[in-house]
Amino acid sequence: MRPTLDKKPELDTPCLVLDLDILEHSIRKMQATATKAGKSLRPHAKTHKCSALARMQLEAGATGVCAAKLSEAEALVKAGIEDVLITGPVVTPRKLERLVGLVSRSASLKVVLDHAGNAASLDQKLGESGLSMGVYLDVDVGLHRSGAKPSAAVALADKIATCPNLRLVGVQAYAGQVQHIRSYAERRERSLHCLEDAVAVFREVRSRVPACTTLSTSGTGTFDIDLEIAEVSELQVGSYVLMDTEYLDIGSALHSSHFLAFEPALRMLTTVISANHENHVTVDAGLKSIYRDGGMPRVAGPALSPLEYDWFGDEYGMISAKDGSPLPAPGAVLELLVSHCDPTVNLFDAYHLTRGDAVVGSWPIDLRGCSQ
Amino acid sequence: MRPTLDKKPELDTPCLVLDLDILEHSIRKMQATATKAGKSLRPHAKTHKCSALARMQLEAGATGVCAAKLSEAEALVKAGIEDVLITGPVVTPRKLERLVGLVSRSASLKVVLDHAGNAASLDQKLGESGLSMGVYLDVDVGLHRSGAKPSAAVALADKIATCPNLRLVGVQAYAGQVQHIRSYAERRERSLHCLEDAVAVFREVRSRVPACTTLSTSGTGTFDIDLEIAEVSELQVGSYVLMDTEYLDIGSALHSSHFLAFEPALRMLTTVISANHENHVTVDAGLKSIYRDGGMPRVAGPALSPLEYDWFGDEYGMISAKDGSPLPAPGAVLELLVSHCDPTVNLFDAYHLTRGDAVVGSWPIDLRGCSQ
Repeated sequence: MRPTLDKKPELDTPCLVLDLDILEHSIRKMQATATKAGKSLRPHAKTHKCSALARMQLEAGATGVCAAKLSEAEALVKAGIEDVLITGPVVTPRKLERLVGLVSRSASLKVVLDHAGNAASLDQKLGESGLSMGVYLDVDVGLHRSGAKPSAAVALADKIATCPNLRLVGVQAYAGQVQHIRSYAERRERSLHCLEDAVAVFREVRSRVPACTTLSTSGTGTFDIDLEIAEVSELQVGSYVLMDTEYLDIGSALHSSHFLAFEPALRMLTTVISANHENHVTVDAGLKSIYRDGGMPRVAGPALSPLEYDWFGDEYGMISAKDGSPLPAPGAVLELLVSHCDPTVNLFDAYHLTRGDAVVGSWPIDLRGCSQ
Repeated sequence: MRPTLDKKPELDTPCLVLDLDILEHSIRKMQATATKAGKSLRPHAKTHKCSALARMQLEAGATGVCAAKLSEAEALVKAGIEDVLITGPVVTPRKLERLVGLVSRSASLKVVLDHAGNAASLDQKLGESGLSMGVYLDVDVGLHRSGAKPSAAVALADKIATCPNLRLVGVQAYAGQVQHIRSYAERRERSLHCLEDAVAVFREVRSRVPACTTLSTSGTGTFDIDLEIAEVSELQVGSYVLMDTEYLDIGSALHSSHFLAFEPALRMLTTVISANHENHVTVDAGLKSIYRDGGMPRVAGPALSPLEYDWFGDEYGMISAKDGSPLPAPGAVLELLVSHCDPTVNLFDAYHLTRGDAVVGSWPIDLRGCSQ
């Protein structure tokens, strides 16, 4: 952390700022929730794309971290973070070579498997290098994106168990389709219901493969629900650490005390660059700075800001004011809550770190662009 | 350009590939169209974010290039490309300092102005460094994003003309609101109509400031329309060089021979990473690799591919097949046309360059992330 003399409103924009006080509080809060419930925490680095932030989560007590892609895991291992679970299948011969190369640098690297042919290819590549690795059986609990069908999962576990260079240590079940359901009651009912399949698979696999002791699941939308399940041992939460308007809106609908505890640590600063109209001004953050997906960015500040953001092309945004409130002047800097944190973070190379209005350092977003 | 032995389907995915044969043809075609009409070409680097590609456009005859943001201009000047027009206002004291710093490295750098206070601030900063620079008066022709209102534009030109360190050399008028209108007849009528205001301002300003000889306008959607206007001297086209499904769909609706001449030079490669379902497979390009904005990515290849892409989260896409056609197997590589080229390019660090199936080199996307 490099100390600087900048004040937040003096930063060049658009830029991302992380409020360290909120961030540290959110990390402690989620870790304490998991620990109290007897669960391990394996936060998803796909959200923040930052090894320095992952290290802060590990220092607070996380078991390891998740990465969505091999290249994210490569960046994490390069930064010295070794206990990484890659949560999507790695399938091509070249990618498998990269994966085995990474195992040689991190003995605790793990990857998910959802296909017998993929298991056999990985086992063979590992054997050629005299290596072995831990794997999680990926079970599809209704998202239908990756994962073996529950009906085929035990047979796949048996197949993996025959591979001499694969150690089956866990079952992964991610219910992405329920994370953003607005009604807490419905979200709870659907999450618990779809994880029943995963629990059944996990019990059966554990009875056949005693080393398979981890059931890894959940997300920011359901962590406080899924920890009710005795078999769940590891929570894969991501967005809680930064937050965005999509999850904040669910929080508001829910009035869950767990959920509302996560304040948005991530903010976007943007500057008014044109003001020639009575009813709006133009700011310098558009869809190349705030990923346009789902929700709308929101002007932060006083609880009910009269200012509203709207999209205005690749490089610009439009700010209008409700109720005849005054518009900000050219050069004024506004603070926005972003609509979807994960892909927005992926547009920037660094976070500026703040405490109150003071800029106290920066962190590289060293997993930025790691889509492979 | 670094020669390699890779074949296109062997590249790690997701990745961007540029078909050099199509790219070179598109660059020649647009330049010939402008030259034949007696217009200068100033392609927008915000589309491709690549100084090597900008250099190819300059070598084909372009006068200079456009940049949307100061940081893009900084990257272009660093790469040795000096005649850059920054097409949005630069307003804060720190950004103005960066701008003046850049003028000291590029005498032909230009910026737009739409506000008297901004003109005065820039003039003062330049004077403090003993520098001067060329500026374009930005006129709003209906997009209402930046630009002085036509009714206020001549007074602003007079104000700029009194600034000793500013040389008013052009008028900019960008009609972004008409570029994607599907009907050619309606697009033509609306583009010509809204540019009437710009022509009137330009004539008046030119009569008062004889050095102001450039009227700069247009985009890929209207270049073949706007070159009918005698006063228009410079075309700011961007997307033609890469193309995307948004512009291809307009092309199809239009049946304009000019427009259809631009084939998509940009492609995205993606790999099937999970295949446990009868009616779809999962690929490794999601909304962190293809910007989700407007149109839908399309599977390239045979003219009417039976395969269809759909969004499947931050890291994944879903491929389904029409008419019972077979689905691709795990590990298969597909080629996609992206939905919106500009922000998608901004997600990657390099283009792979191809001729047919051969990978012949790569170019860094050196303006990637330059949103400031």
